[in-house]
This record gives sequence, C-alpha cells and structure tokens, in this order.
Amino acid sequence: MYITDETIDRLIREDIPYLDLTTHILNIRERKGTIRFTSRQKAVISGTDIVARIFEKLGIRIINIIPSGTGVEAGEIFIEAQGTAQSLHMAWKVSINILEYCSGIATRTRTLVDSAKKINPKIEVVTTRKVFPGTKELSIKAILDGGALPHRLGLSETILIFKQHAVFLGGVDGLLGELEKIKERVCEKKVVVEVECREDAIKLCHARINALQFDKIPPEKLKEIVNDIRKINFGITLISTGGINAENIEAYAAAGVDVINTSSVYFGKPVDIGVEIKRVDL
Amino acid sequence: MYITDETIDRLIREDIPYLDLTTHILNIRERKGTIRFTSRQKAVISGTDIVARIFEKLGIRIINIIPSGTGVEAGEIFIEAQGTAQSLHMAWKVSINILEYCSGIATRTRTLVDSAKKINPKIEVVTTRKVFPGTKELSIKAILDGGALPHRLGLSETILIFKQHAVFLGGVDGLLGELEKIKERVCEKKVVVEVECREDAIKLCHARINALQFDKIPPEKLKEIVNDIRKINFGITLISTGGINAENIEAYAAAGVDVINTSSVYFGKPVDIGVEIKRVDL
Amino acid sequence: MYITDETIDRLIREDIPYLDLTTHILNIRERKGTIRFTSRQKAVISGTDIVARIFEKLGIRIINIIPSGTGVEAGEIFIEAQGTAQSLHMAWKVSINILEYCSGIATRTRTLVDSAKKINPKIEVVTTRKVFPGTKELSIKAILDGGALPHRLGLSETILIFKQHAVFLGGVDGLLGELEKIKERVCEKKVVVEVECREDAIKLCHARINALQFDKIPPEKLKEIVNDIRKINFGITLISTGGINAENIEAYAAAGVDVINTSSVYFGKPVDIGVEIKRVDL
Amino acid sequence: MYITDETIDRLIREDIPYLDLTTHILNIRERKGTIRFTSRQKAVISGTDIVARIFEKLGIRIINIIPSGTGVEAGEIFIEAQGTAQSLHMAWKVSINILEYCSGIATRTRTLVDSAKKINPKIEVVTTRKVFPGTKELSIKAILDGGALPHRLGLSETILIFKQHAVFLGGVDGLLGELEKIKERVCEKKVVVEVECREDAIKLCHARINALQFDKIPPEKLKEIVNDIRKINFGITLISTGGINAENIEAYAAAGVDVINTSSVYFGKPVDIGVEIKRVDL
Amino acid sequence: MYITDETIDRLIREDIPYLDLTTHILNIRERKGTIRFTSRQKAVISGTDIVARIFEKLGIRIINIIPSGTGVEAGEIFIEAQGTAQSLHMAWKVSINILEYCSGIATRTRTLVDSAKKINPKIEVVTTRKVFPGTKELSIKAILDGGALPHRLGLSETILIFKQHAVFLGGVDGLLGELEKIKERVCEKKVVVEVECREDAIKLCHARINALQFDKIPPEKLKEIVNDIRKINFGITLISTGGINAENIEAYAAAGVDVINTSSVYFGKPVDIGVEIKRVDL
Amino acid sequence: MYITDETIDRLIREDIPYLDLTTHILNIRERKGTIRFTSRQKAVISGTDIVARIFEKLGIRIINIIPSGTGVEAGEIFIEAQGTAQSLHMAWKVSINILEYCSGIATRTRTLVDSAKKINPKIEVVTTRKVFPGTKELSIKAILDGGALPHRLGLSETILIFKQHAVFLGGVDGLLGELEKIKERVCEKKVVVEVECREDAIKLCHARINALQFDKIPPEKLKEIVNDIRKINFGITLISTGGINAENIEAYAAAGVDVINTSSVYFGKPVDIGVEIKRVDL
Repeated sequence: MYITDETIDRLIREDIPYLDLTTHILNIRERKGTIRFTSRQKAVISGTDIVARIFEKLGIRIINIIPSGTGVEAGEIFIEAQGTAQSLHMAWKVSINILEYCSGIATRTRTLVDSAKKINPKIEVVTTRKVFPGTKELSIKAILDGGALPHRLGLSETILIFKQHAVFLGGVDGLLGELEKIKERVCEKKVVVEVECREDAIKLCHARINALQFDKIPPEKLKEIVNDIRKINFGITLISTGGINAENIEAYAAAGVDVINTSSVYFGKPVDIGVEIKRVDL
Repeated sequence: MYITDETIDRLIREDIPYLDLTTHILNIRERKGTIRFTSRQKAVISGTDIVARIFEKLGIRIINIIPSGTGVEAGEIFIEAQGTAQSLHMAWKVSINILEYCSGIATRTRTLVDSAKKINPKIEVVTTRKVFPGTKELSIKAILDGGALPHRLGLSETILIFKQHAVFLGGVDGLLGELEKIKERVCEKKVVVEVECREDAIKLCHARINALQFDKIPPEKLKEIVNDIRKINFGITLISTGGINAENIEAYAAAGVDVINTSSVYFGKPVDIGVEIKRVDL
Repeated sequence: MYITDETIDRLIREDIPYLDLTTHILNIRERKGTIRFTSRQKAVISGTDIVARIFEKLGIRIINIIPSGTGVEAGEIFIEAQGTAQSLHMAWKVSINILEYCSGIATRTRTLVDSAKKINPKIEVVTTRKVFPGTKELSIKAILDGGALPHRLGLSETILIFKQHAVFLGGVDGLLGELEKIKERVCEKKVVVEVECREDAIKLCHARINALQFDKIPPEKLKEIVNDIRKINFGITLISTGGINAENIEAYAAAGVDVINTSSVYFGKPVDIGVEIKRVDL
Repeated sequence: MYITDETIDRLIREDIPYLDLTTHILNIRERKGTIRFTSRQKAVISGTDIVARIFEKLGIRIINIIPSGTGVEAGEIFIEAQGTAQSLHMAWKVSINILEYCSGIATRTRTLVDSAKKINPKIEVVTTRKVFPGTKELSIKAILDGGALPHRLGLSETILIFKQHAVFLGGVDGLLGELEKIKERVCEKKVVVEVECREDAIKLCHARINALQFDKIPPEKLKEIVNDIRKINFGITLISTGGINAENIEAYAAAGVDVINTSSVYFGKPVDIGVEIKRVDL
Repeated sequence: MYITDETIDRLIREDIPYLDLTTHILNIRERKGTIRFTSRQKAVISGTDIVARIFEKLGIRIINIIPSGTGVEAGEIFIEAQGTAQSLHMAWKVSINILEYCSGIATRTRTLVDSAKKINPKIEVVTTRKVFPGTKELSIKAILDGGALPHRLGLSETILIFKQHAVFLGGVDGLLGELEKIKERVCEKKVVVEVECREDAIKLCHARINALQFDKIPPEKLKEIVNDIRKINFGITLISTGGINAENIEAYAAAGVDVINTSSVYFGKPVDIGVEIKRVDL
Repeated sequence: MYITDETIDRLIREDIPYLDLTTHILNIRERKGTIRFTSRQKAVISGTDIVARIFEKLGIRIINIIPSGTGVEAGEIFIEAQGTAQSLHMAWKVSINILEYCSGIATRTRTLVDSAKKINPKIEVVTTRKVFPGTKELSIKAILDGGALPHRLGLSETILIFKQHAVFLGGVDGLLGELEKIKERVCEKKVVVEVECREDAIKLCHARINALQFDKIPPEKLKEIVNDIRKINFGITLISTGGINAENIEAYAAAGVDVINTSSVYFGKPVDIGVEIKRVDL
C-alpha cells in the first residue's frame, strides 16, 4: 500500500500540534535514549512500516523492526530504535496507537481467516466498508496484513445492488427486468445483488446474476439456500454478510458460500503493546 | 467543536472517490427518495451535526434531526431527510459509519460517567490519547457528547511526567530535585506526574506536586494511598488511569480520586443503526 | 460524481493566486456585467456543474445553465450569468478551460459510443487510465457525460494481469498454474488477462479465465480469434484495447468483443467555446 | 521549477488509492525487476525529474535517466531502474502518463519554437493560459522544457486588457482616456492590450501603449498592420495570438511580431512511450 | 482577491483545534450574544471580508460591517454581529488578530501612499516580498486595501536581476553583454536591474534597460542620478528601494523616481481594536 | 517542535509558485555558488532548522549552520551552504524572511525574558495568542527560541475566563456561584480568570481561584493588589497582561506576579540579515 507523506504528517500532527511541552520544560530534549516496543500478547503486528516512516521523519534511527503482518508471541520485542528524548516522546504515543489498533484488526482478521479456511480452504474472507471514518488507509492495511481483502473500497468501482437501490426500480421484480442490460453495461465486473430471502435469490439466480450476497441469514438456513442455488448455477459467486464474527464464522464457512464478508474485525480491543524508553549515554 | 470543510470532504471522499457506480449503472440517480436513521438500541447518538454537514454538501434536505449528544431509545428515528437516489446513496454509508462509531463512543462514555458520578458526584471522567489515529476530531466530539472531557489533546499544552521522562533525569529522585523549578516554569498549569507506587506518590506529594496520576493500581490499594496522600495535601489533584472500564469504574470512583482517566470508551462495538431508504414521487 | 470544495478551490487558484491585477488597475471591479458561454460547434457540453460551483464561490448569479452532459448545436448559448466585473474576470478563463477540455472529451466519447453502438448496440465503451495526470476527476466526469464508463479507476479495486505481471510468474504458462487459486481469491471480481496473441487467449480461455483483453490486434484478426474463443466459452467477457479511435472503432465493434477500451477520447482539440461579457447597469 | 511533495503524492494517489490489487493477489510483490522506458518516436522527453521523485518515494533505484528537456530518437531508452514488482507496477502507469503528456507538449513546443526561430531568430514563443485545469505545473514544466515561456501564469502579476475589460470603460475609446494613468500605476510592467483590428491598434499605438496583442488576424493582414505600427513606434512589443499552430506559425513569424502566443502545444497526441518490465534475480 | 475555504479554515483552526474549552466548561455555549468591533485609533480597516467568511462558517449573523479598505475614526464601530456564546468566542481572537495585523499594514500603507503622492501624484508605492512567511495572502490583501500594489508576488512572473544573479555572469559587465538577448526573450515584460551605484545605472541605461531599481541610495544622491538617467532615457522606469519608510518617503518621492518600493508597511504595531461581547436574550 | 513537510512546501511555494523566471532567462540555473547569511546586528537567530529543511528540499548542501535559538554578534556568519544558482535563488528570499521575522521575535523575547528575570529570577514570560494569523508555528518556534513559553496555544486545552464569558453568567458574581463546580470539572488544569480591578481579584481569591490574570493594571497599582492577594492565598498564580513591553517589563516584574504575558514580541522590526551569493567553479 502507498501511504503519502501527508498522511504520515497528519498522524503525527494529531498528537503534536507544536512542541512536546513536557520534554521542553524538563530540559531533556537532546538527551539520547532507546525505545523498545513489546507485544504483551500473541498477535499479528501491523503498522511497523508506518511507524518506520514516523521515526524517519522524527530523526529516530531504527535498530530492529519486523515487517508489517508478522506474527509475534507474547513478550516479543518487535521494534527497537534510538533517538533524542524529544524525538522518542514525540513518536511514542502516535506509534503505539497505530500499532495497537492496526494489530488488533490484523490479529482478529487472521483469526477469522484461519477459522474459515480450516472449514473450507477455498473460502475468502473480505471486509466491509464499516471502518471508523478517517481510518480507511490504516484499516485496509491491517486487514491485508491479517490475510483478508477489502470487499469494496468505495462506491466507485464495484456494483452491489441493495434493496435500497431496488426500491427505485420497483423492487426485485423491477430489477429483474433491467438485469440483462445492467450486466451488459458492466460486463467487465461481476454484478452482485444483496438478498435477504431464498425467493429473491432463486429468482436472481435464474436471471443469471453473477453473484449474490446473503444478508443476515442464519448458517443452517443459508446452507439450504446455497445448495438450491448451486443446483441452478454451480459457478455463481455466493457471499455471506451480516453479523459474522469469530463465534459463528465456522458455521458460515460450512454453509458453502465462496466469500465471508465481515465488519467485526474493525472494532474490538487494540492489541496490548508495551513501550520501554531508556537513557543511553553515547 | 469546529469541524473544517476539508474534514467533511475527506470523510465523504473516503467512500466516494469518484461516482457511485451502482446508481449510475441502474440509471436511478435523479429519482427522489427519503432516508431515515433509526437506532436499534438505547444509545447516546453522536455525530448528527457532522451528518448534517455531509447532507448539505450532497444536496440532501433535512426534515428532522436530533442534536448530537441526545439519548434515544431503541427504535427511535433520529434523522429523516430527502434527496435524489444518488445523493442518498452517496451519504448513506459514510453517515451511518460516523453515527455508529461516534454513538458507540458517546454511549460508552455516558455509561462510565453515570457510573462514576453515582458513587462520587464530584468526580470527573476524562479520556486518554489512545484514539484510533485519524479519528481524533470524531473521537473527541463523541466523548464530549457523552459527558467526558479530554485528558490531554496532545503533547503541546499540558505537563504530564511519565517514568519515560524521569529516566532522563535519573528517575523520580532526579525529578524531585528539579520539581520546584519546573513548577515555577509552568505555574499557569498543573504539573502532573504519573506514579506506579505509594512510595513515589508520597515523595512527590511532600514535594508539593500539583497532581498525581496513578497507573494501574488496584482500587483497594489505590484507596489506601489516596487516604494517605490527602492527609499530606488535601487539595492535591488525584487521577486514576490504566485499565479502567465499565466493570471496575465504580470501585475506582470509590477510591477517592478526583479524576478517572480511561481509554476503554474509544473501542468496542459501534451502535447498531438502521437505515431505510424509500422512493417518493414528488 | 462528488467534487470536493478543495478541488474547486484548487482549480480557481491555478489561475488566480491572489488578485485579478487587470480589473484592479482598471478600477472596474465593482461594475456589473453578464457573461454568456456559447459553443462554436456541435458538442456534448461537460463541466457546467463545476462551473456552477465556481460561480457560486465567486458570487456570480446563474441565470441559465444546461446540465452537464447535454448536447448543443453550434451557436447555442448554454450558460448565462451575472456578477461584478471582478468576479466575471476571475471566473472566465478557468471556466472556459474546464468546459472546453471536458466537452472535448465528452464529445469525442459520445461519438465513439454512437459509432460502436450503431454496429453492436450491446457493446460498451470504456476508457483507460491514460488521463493527463492531475485531471482524473475532470476526465472521468467527462467520459461519463459522454456515455462511457471507466475501465479501471486505479490499481486498487480490479484485477488486470499484464505480461508485465506474468513475467514474475514465468510467463503465461506460469500464470496458468496459478489461475484457479487467483480466481478463488478474488471471486467477487472478474479476473482479466491482457493477451497479444491467439495462442495465449485460447490457453486462458480453456483455463476458464473470466475476461480477456486483446491488445493492439487488428480488427479482422481479432474477429477470428473472438469466434474461436466464443466456441470454447460463449459467456466470457472480451475486451479490445490499444489504438482504438474514431477511425477504426466500427471495425473493432464488428469484431464481436463486448467492450471497447480506448484512450483516444482523452486528448485532442478542446471544444471551441465563445465567451461574451457585457456591462449592465443595474 | 519547484514541485512540492504534495503534488508528487497527489499524482501517485490518483492511480493508487490503496494497494495494487493485482500484484497483491498474484503474490509477486517482493520479486525484483527492472523497468525501462523507451520512446517509440523522435521526441523531446519531459518529466523525467518528476518520475525520479515518484521512483524515490516508491523505493525504486534509478540506474539511468536523462534530464527533462532532452531530445531522443525513436527507440532510445531514456530511463532504466530497478525495484520490487510492487513498486514497479505502482510507478508504471502514473510515470508513463506524465512522460507521454509532458513530452507531447514539450515536443510540440520545440517544433513550434524551431519553426518560428528559423524565420525570425529573435522571435519568442509563449504559451497561453489554456491548460487542462489541474495540470498547470506539468504543462508549464513541459513548455519550458520545449523552449517556450509562459505568456501569463495567472491573473495576478500581468496586465492584459481584453475587450471584455474595455466594455466596462466604454470600449477602446474609454480605455484610451484612462491609459496614461494605467501606465503610471503599473509602470514596472508592460501594459498589453488585445486588439482585433488595425484601427484600434493604431489608436493605442499613438497613445503609447507598451504592447499590443493581435487576436486571430490572418498573417498577411497582420504583416501590414505590424509595418504600420512599427512606423509609429518601432520599439513597441507586438504579440500575435489566436489559432496559431504548427501549420501557420511560419507565416505568423514572418509577419514581424516579437512574440507568438499559442495554445496548440497543450493538446494533441501524447508521445508514444514503451515500457518493459523484466524479472531479475538478485 | 480570492481567498479559498481552505485558507479560512486554516486560520480558524490555528486558534481552535477542537473545542473552546472555556465556554464548554462554563456551559454557556448556546446562550445568545452580540459582538462589536471598534477601532481605538484612526485607521484603514482591512480584513472585514475575511472576518465575514469566518462568521459565516461559524454561524454568526452579521448586522453591520464596513468594506475592507475603509478608513475609520477612533471609536468607530465597524462590525456588529450576533451569535451563540460559543460561536462568538470561537470567532473573537482569530478575527481581531486578522483585523489588527491587516489594518496595521493597510494603515501604514495608506500613510506612505498619501505622503508620496503629496510630493508626486504620479508616483506609485509598491511593496516588497518581505512578508512574514505564511501571511502573503493577508499581507497582499492589506497593502491593496491601503492603496499600494505588490512589487512582485513571487519569482515566477517578473524579471528582476540582482547582483546575486550578475555574479554568475561575471558581474554587471557580463550582464551587459547578455542584455539585448534577455530583453528579446522576455519582451512582454520590463527587465529590471537593481543597482547600487551611479556608474552601473548609467551603463545599463545606455544599454537600454527597461527599468532600474536603486537600492539604499540616499535621496539627495538618488535625485542627482535620476536627473542624469532621465537625460539619457526619459521614459525609463526608475524604482527606489531599501530602507524607505514613513520618515524618509517624502524625500525619496522628491528624488524623481516613478516607484517607491518598501517593506516597512509589513511590520510595526497592529491597529488597536476593541471587542465588546454582550448577552442578549432573544 | 515538529514542522510538517506540507508547511515547509507551503512556505517555499508562497515565493516560487512555478519557476524562478530570472535565473531561467539568464540561463544560469546550473552554475554553482555559495550562499552566506550574516546578521547585521546582535540577535538571537531563530529558524535555521526550518531553513535547513528548505535547503534540503531544494538540493542545497549545508556547510555550516548554527542551531535555532543561538545568539550571534553583528557581522557573524551563521549559515553557509552550496548549490546551483537556481536552488540558491529559490531559497534566498523565503529563507531570509523566515530568519528575519523569527529572529526578530526571538531577540525581542530574549530581551524581555532577561529584563524580567534580572528583577525576579523566578518569573516566567509567556506570550499571548496575538500572532499574525498564518504564522503560529513560526511565531511559537521563535518565542521558544527566545526563552518564553506560549500562554495558550489555542482555545482547546486551557481555561481562561474573560469578562466576555462572565457576561453570559451574570458577571463576576454569577461566575463566583459556579466557580466550585468549574474547578471540579477541570481539576487537572488551573482555572484562570482575567480581572481588571482589585475588587474582583479579592472576591475570586477568596473563592479559591487557581490563578488571576490582571489586564492593563499599572505596575504600582498592581504591586499593591498582588500584596493584598498574597496575604489571602500565598500560592495563587498571578499573571500580568496587557501592554507589557521592553519599556515597562521591569516594573511589572517588580510587581510580584509569577507570570508576565505579552504580545509585544510578535511585532516590530525583523532582524537585519545580509545574504551573500558567490559563484564557485567546481
């Protein structure tokens, strides 16, 4: 992923609008020290590349750092660096916040991916657009590090027809009348329709839709519908969405869909990361 | 809070880099509809003022909207508006994401504030700097809506001395030697020191520190230390931080501190909000 | 399409970094006038919505304006507005430049779309990523106004495998070995491969690729390949790209592909638009 | 020319909002390769310095690169660099687009400059404000590389009086009454008036205007007017503008003006540039 | 002058990164009040248009406001507006700072212009590039309001040759050898050379330079040189720069130059402006 | 202090929107030279770190540079660097402007700090929010370099109650009724109230306010009030503000306050700095 300098600067600036008043007042700015980040839990660490960019901007020299997306055990040191007290204190909180939130997302993602693939190795886990607004770059980076893909990055490059669209066409039946034309218009892409019941799914499948997204259908019920659909069109892409999380993902993976779409990785506890700053006399 | 146009545009742009391809392809862009947001749970709704700004930019006319920070019951409609299918679909997801995340933070904040004040009506709940990077404006807005205040907005306007600072001065004892001078230098502000043990707290209290922040001290133990400290300096400001959440906040509030500092409101499940889009023929 | 205020301001600022020195020196700033834009040729006018935004920012009142994407005859007035001499002179050049370039693109697009659809009404015209860097918003807006769609808006949401990718996998044969796995991984999207010869196309078709993009294959030759491919997989999506323009598009449309992908609309003469400014005494 | 980091990042971001999905899915991101850019035609290459900035941001190491503004023959390799598959694919399209468009402008500019100077070595070719909005930095860079100068970079630093200004003063006669005062007010600059007929030119020349810009006057007619004007004021600056291009520039250069002002270099076919990406095993 | 929304927002944001903590804590945010700005001295008020933009963004309703550039007497109220306590407190300081600094510049400018024109009504006062970096928009706005013009807005549109340029050409004599060619190359503009002694001035005048800028030459001496120069070329533009201020401008104006170039208006005391905020019960 | 790349680029761009036309025309761009900055007066030089960033962006190699905040004697060279004529001319004016304005502020600040501390070594000098809008980063940097601290960086992190707040609470008496609650709400911070008379000061002191700010009270009178206040609450923080400058700061320092708050350092003459550019043949 490409992260602009403006993004890096904006992240730093959120925490340090001007000076670090405390190191200024303590008159310790130019003293030298080391900083070490340790995971207090088993986790997939995400965001080390962004922290490396922050360190570079603040003049902190990296001694060791693991690549973003690496798994660590509890107690493992994964970044070690050296700089002035001022630069270390400027970098500390913004870095740990990035690492804790991104690693939280990456870790939850890796767990979901592993659970789903254990049941069906061909299944894909993708993540919804329900990111905390303002964090799309970091959130997408983290789910990629965790092994998922984004379902849709925004509204501009994919076709996903919700009932909130169909309502302007007279509902699913109105949509069916337009479907052939729609498919021709965007034949470079798969046309996906979200459905909430078996009946609509069957109708759309008969109309040769490319992909169906099932919203909030319980796994058992979903399995039956998937079986029926596969009999009509074996190659159709089937996606399950709505309320899928670590508790129920195996059941959903067993339902026979090709894709699990989830928001649950985006929120939850950040990974607990410890920071140690020590003085060094150089 | 003042939110710039650039922020509003950046939020919209995260979800709509160019067009809404689906409404474009369905050829429904100019059809007229209404949008209604309903909370599926009891919650403190936060972010309606930002949604109002988004609606205005997209040409959506607001019919009803509640002020940011208002409590709602499950099932309550809190925004109703009217626009073209294109504008409603552009506004939908970014708006619901803002509302769900901000309301999640505001609701958790209100709960903590209520819990703490039930025990000690004079106590204040403040929130740490551990926001998801990129969301400080939204996160701070949400905790204000929930009834808390920010502990520190960044590094530039407050003095909070951690052991990671003291290490450059020879530890707490080194710090004690500088304390009088530090207090003079920033006498317009309170000088806060974070401590992890009773011994350091007592030393700093004798040295007439303005405020002490206790990190991760269990409530029972904290209560004892607070009592001892108050005997030395009754008017000192005492803050408790580290791992405080809905489960343990009452115990911390009962420990006699003046301020509860927490990160736990920033993460957790977003509030579940429903959106209904209907066609209207005008 | 959603255009941010920042984009509008940047466009204005390119031409007016500070003041309009000429109206300032002539001391005519507050005099009132009208501005009228006329097309000197038959054209599809694009960009009037952006000009409307510029006028609003500069305090110019619109009297008449046609929607972006409307066709006009030579001599037709399509915007008429009123403001101070200063605001009209600030708006003039940036507005005419937007209108001339966007309308040039939209007009060329409409011509290509009409030519292609005359031969095959089900064909789609899409446009490449070869925009003048810095103009993607305006360029995409203009091709949409002309009736095309973007082929890909960037690298982040579609799969298009070039030989420049395959080279890292050991060429097309290496790619074939990975194809099933790739298709599973992104089963929500069509996987497109660009080919330059019949042999690769046949191989990939047998491997059940979703879509093939033929680069710079002459129309007659292309027609033969398309026929052969359709016999293997009738439903495959076939795209023709490379050097397609107003002169040869009909031949390409007759070759049986589903999609024509072209860059030629992006460059060429801007539409010739006249501007008349008159003084009015109010 | 100074190009900001923000501009470089914006150009990259237009093509890569997040990841390069194709290299991600193919799992080839970290493989190493070389990229080579070759001109398929004789051209003046412009934009290599900007490509160098993009390469640096993406971690691509340059092996060979020619300075912006250098002429190349068909088939000449002018950039050679090395990086990961991911970085090369991220850089490829944005770089080639910059090079093709800028080199197109620079090549057309060089041709016009050479044609004009062959007739009159003292003549200057300048370019108008009719750039594609959003490209002023790149367009100006390219015309400088081609050997021209900008006529006016915007409205804030030069005086050019059009009839659209004069209309607020009662036309050319009204303007004449103000001319002495205007010249005094901006005596550090030349006051230029655009004229469309001999009569106005003569009047303004008698009024000691510094420079006249002749709009869309045929070369033969222009030559006569220029001769007449030079008899009145030999040192006046005379500019020809409006519809001047590669076909007619020699005739205009022969008309005796000091400056040729043209828009025609800004549009037209980009230079055809080939890119080769190869795998290397390091 | 055109001021972007981004500039307005940046100015507001400098003072209000998030909330106004004081009105928040006092719980007076929604109370209604009026704000009135009064000049405590005779002044040219500059910046009211920018304040109007700030007020609009903050929801403050203007009751009365004078146009930017208007002269006021001591004690005169020049803005009166109404809003909530929160909006008034957000607007207060940033508005008064803009008004005090801009009016300071405008007032000093008006004084210099009046002094110079009293001696020579045809003289022009222009201002240098020595603005406080970050304030060019506001500073240029203010000097225009005061009746001056900018000497040069930047490096990109004017030719001013310093000895720091000549040094690369072998000094003034080297420059003389290039002068004819330089003048041809930029014949749309006046070529200005800064000189520090009579000898260089005479040489350049004989070489038919368009304009000379005299740096830090005392008025009496300057007068003699001007006389000598005028005998050689009466129409040459002569500019005096370097240390010109309210004390010596009349002497410089009497020296016979056409233009006075000064930096002194940019710094000095801001105009003293009073603000009154009152509660109103609506 | 952390300065973003965007800030550095914006400063450069203010002076060089595109090219440096003069070096371009003189065709000296690639010649090599040195630049040396010399203070023409005894001063505290501020801004060298920012100039170093500008030089780096423009490819200028630094030979010698002093740290920002260093005192120099008249005639002392404090920056020496080497680059192309083009880069030196691009850097020259923006660098000298930053250095002259920042050093002006830093020098005036140092003078005030020294004067005040000579009278009372424990006193602190802080600076108000009355910066020239658009310069807060540079201005704050400069006052820190001069030895002062910012009084308040904005409205979001400190409590300062003006009469313009009290008016919404029924004046000082209304405020007194709320004071205990306000102090509890923000007990991590000192609550400061600005007063203009002895009577209000005494009332607030009795109500145990943390700090009082005295506005425009003459030093003799202030001394009396301070004495009275100290008798009631010895540890209260007392601040003097309003019209304090180099002439009267000693008298104010002698009045017994803890803090002197001043705006006077922000304006006044920039430090006079000389620049020498020489050609070198490498």
